[in-house]
Amino acid sequence: MNDLVDKSNVILQSHRKSIDRLDAILVYTLAERFKYTQEVGKLKAKNNLEPSDPARELKQIKRLERLSKDAGLDQAFAKKFLNFIISEVIRHHQSLQQ
Amino acid sequence: MNDLVDKSNVILQSHRKSIDRLDAILVYTLAERFKYTQEVGKLKAKNNLEPSDPARELKQIKRLERLSKDAGLDQAFAKKFLNFIISEVIRHHQSLQQ
Repeated sequence: MNDLVDKSNVILQSHRKSIDRLDAILVYTLAERFKYTQEVGKLKAKNNLEPSDPARELKQIKRLERLSKDAGLDQAFAKKFLNFIISEVIRHHQSLQQ
Repeated sequence: MNDLVDKSNVILQSHRKSIDRLDAILVYTLAERFKYTQEVGKLKAKNNLEPSDPARELKQIKRLERLSKDAGLDQAFAKKFLNFIISEVIRHHQSLQQ
């Protein structure tokens, strides 16, 4: 029984290391994404374009939904992620309008 | 002036393609992360371990804060991401306890 617990503990530590590595990917990818959304904001401001683009946003949402499904992402989790990205888009637009 | 708008439009489309690619990385990385958190949950249930591990969670939060800083992530955005991950951890624990 102790052997089984030890073995499970090794697997647990291994899984946690994978989660930590994936979190690093997520944080750095978000930073890269953020760089582009900032550039888009500046570009729109420079060319007097509307900060919000509902057609583009709808396309993004549909695409994220499709990607989440293809990736086999848990649906409740996918919905949370979509809300997170969407709220970020809105926050970004608001900061540009100020 | 039209040349400038055309050029800006080319850059805008290029940035949007980058954002779309980064979103695909995010979705697939989240799906991979989710696989591991599910495995951890099953492992804990099998070994009658507590689903929640406050020491590990605190360590994760501190690490994410450090990573966000290192990656140059906007602080308001980093905070939103942390809340998103933390709320997911809580949701995951709750579903395991049911």
